Amino acid sequence: MMDWDSVWIGAQIATLENGQYNVIEDGALAVKQGRIAWLGAKQDLPAHQAQHTYQLEGGVITPGLVDCHTHLVFGGNRANEFEMRLNGATYQEIAKAGGGIVSSVNATRAASVDELVDTAQKRLNSLMADGVTSVEIKSGYGLNAQSEIAMLQAAKTLLDNNPVDIKTTCLAAHALPPEFAGRPDDYIDYVCQEILPQVAQLGLADAVDAFCEGIGFSVAQTQRYFEAAKALGLPVKLHAEQLSSLGGSSMAAGYQALSADHLEYVTEDDVKAMADAGTVAVILPGAYYVLRETQKPPIDLFRKHKVPMAIATDANPGTAPVLSLRLMMNMACTLFGMTPEEALAGATIHAAKALGMEQQVGTLAVGKQANFVHWDVQTPGELSYWLGGQFVLQRVYQGEVCS
Amino acid sequence: MMDWDSVWIGAQIATLENGQYNVIEDGALAVKQGRIAWLGAKQDLPAHQAQHTYQLEGGVITPGLVDCHTHLVFGGNRANEFEMRLNGATYQEIAKAGGGIVSSVNATRAASVDELVDTAQKRLNSLMADGVTSVEIKSGYGLNAQSEIAMLQAAKTLLDNNPVDIKTTCLAAHALPPEFAGRPDDYIDYVCQEILPQVAQLGLADAVDAFCEGIGFSVAQTQRYFEAAKALGLPVKLHAEQLSSLGGSSMAAGYQALSADHLEYVTEDDVKAMADAGTVAVILPGAYYVLRETQKPPIDLFRKHKVPMAIATDANPGTAPVLSLRLMMNMACTLFGMTPEEALAGATIHAAKALGMEQQVGTLAVGKQANFVHWDVQTPGELSYWLGGQFVLQRVYQGEVCS
Ligand SMILES: [Zn+2]
Ligand SMILES: [Zn+2]
Repeated sequence: MMDWDSVWIGAQIATLENGQYNVIEDGALAVKQGRIAWLGAKQDLPAHQAQHTYQLEGGVITPGLVDCHTHLVFGGNRANEFEMRLNGATYQEIAKAGGGIVSSVNATRAASVDELVDTAQKRLNSLMADGVTSVEIKSGYGLNAQSEIAMLQAAKTLLDNNPVDIKTTCLAAHALPPEFAGRPDDYIDYVCQEILPQVAQLGLADAVDAFCEGIGFSVAQTQRYFEAAKALGLPVKLHAEQLSSLGGSSMAAGYQALSADHLEYVTEDDVKAMADAGTVAVILPGAYYVLRETQKPPIDLFRKHKVPMAIATDANPGTAPVLSLRLMMNMACTLFGMTPEEALAGATIHAAKALGMEQQVGTLAVGKQANFVHWDVQTPGELSYWLGGQFVLQRVYQGEVCS
Repeated sequence: MMDWDSVWIGAQIATLENGQYNVIEDGALAVKQGRIAWLGAKQDLPAHQAQHTYQLEGGVITPGLVDCHTHLVFGGNRANEFEMRLNGATYQEIAKAGGGIVSSVNATRAASVDELVDTAQKRLNSLMADGVTSVEIKSGYGLNAQSEIAMLQAAKTLLDNNPVDIKTTCLAAHALPPEFAGRPDDYIDYVCQEILPQVAQLGLADAVDAFCEGIGFSVAQTQRYFEAAKALGLPVKLHAEQLSSLGGSSMAAGYQALSADHLEYVTEDDVKAMADAGTVAVILPGAYYVLRETQKPPIDLFRKHKVPMAIATDANPGTAPVLSLRLMMNMACTLFGMTPEEALAGATIHAAKALGMEQQVGTLAVGKQANFVHWDVQTPGELSYWLGGQFVLQRVYQGEVCS
């Protein structure tokens, strides 16, 4: 006689094992102590007792969604800038009016940790309401030790307060702060000598990230930064090849990067390097859409070299004010031609790998954390098909029904 | 001493009068018997008593959103077709597998009115949760008298069951049903002689609509259909110039059409005709996005000739599985360059005009229906800026807080 905490009976279950739907048509799923204890066809359910039994009338259960690239913590927002631009303001005029990333840096530096927590909490609520059970949050609008640490502390507070996994990433090399204008190497020195060691000592970061781009940091600067991260034992990931091809993704693969993200201008050699290193390609259609880009990430190359593709919101105030991972799944299909199955794998198993969490979450399998969603749809493909809408019937985190 | 039912105090109010934000910074709004009884700056509030007083801590109140073009009632969905297409199936293969509009027609004809109501209810819930207080629903997947009537009855049932305005539109000339293959004129005869008179006699339609296109009905056929509608006293609107320029919008303007919708290929002469007739241009960015179209509707021409632009979801199972009007506001800005103010006017005052409801809803003014939304944003522009997310604090329909 099995002794379970809870059991869900009567929905289709898409396990996402191996990145495929792997549908169990009339399924059952049991949880014990926050982990999946049993999973299979309803007709094969063993004799059991359970404190809670959820008799479902159809619908689809999938792994909880994993949003593996967000900038969810920030001060202010840039709706005014969005509005100015659409009213015809040039980038210079917006910069003169205090717009651009520097406006987010100023607003973030001016905010207390509590204020950062409160504003990010609302955004996190939106992500969770749409099925997210694991989320990565980056720093990168502080750009000095104090404010980078405040951002990461805010993310850790969100972790303490919410039924969701949160992985924190130090993105101190996101942009050059005004006080280092013209001195990017000096800023990288400061980051390597001051910010990263403090962040590491406080245990505030699960990984380290940078923006490697013509308008960001060079490959050489990023490499220096990755060396410092490596010395501190922190895994790396990288914003790479978004607007031009610099080879940052190949360089990052040399550090066994967890992921390289954006990748619109990645080359086949970069993709091969990522394949060899086990680096995940994180596809971010929101920024592509918002920026009206035309160069798409080479989905076929990732397929050819079997690089796992994750999908994320990139939630940020400038280039992707995105609060729905499901919407990004639709955009990955509609704009980039990914299949709905790839999109769902990209928001579950492959996103988990991009966070180094593939042993704990991202698929439904015995022993894994019981993070899953019961959706009001008839097929898993519907999750990529609809634009907007509310489909979450239950969001379950570590075996507990949260909504 | 004013005697009100409810009063809301302490939010920014964007009235949308004349299609502009018209912000009242620290506003108050009073309701009596479902209508707006007073509206202005908090400091000017007259002495009053009220059964309910809502003390708000910021946020923005706007008119309830008006979704003036939807196909919300239908059987089945087309997620499988979406999935097939992204897995490389050709349009022929999809048609062979029973896909395309005919699959929606078959599923709709096979559904009972109750089933149509139940499935549409969920979609309506999504629209309402995102701030919609008035919605238009078209028939057009029945394509015979019995099923067109069933669709419109389903829409009327939704009206009875929900705190939302619903306007129904008979779209019997949506597509050629299989039983009339090769005989479009015969089908138009049938529609004019059978469907429209029955629908009119049952009082099931507030307006009449057609799909005027190379793959739909010709201008001459549509004109014959409009004559029948006119004889029955029903106002008209038209799906026009979506994929090619046929002049349907000019023709519709000749019938004082409430709106012409899609309009990617509209000419300046068409736009002038619409301006003269007071016909609203309904912009539908969802279908443009889903179909990966490249020809945008000429926003500048509508501005030049002062044709009011509405924005709608076009919610339908084939070309726009869209369940968020706010997302369409973002797409109107991002894809078509409309301003956030135009987008909000497009989803309120101008959408109300497209439904002939501009005297009742669409702006906040004394005497109008008290349909409004209290949003968790700081500026009305944020409603177009964010992609996804949950921002509705209160949705108020005829003075009652519904969520
Ligand atoms: Zn990013
Ligand atoms: Zn339509």
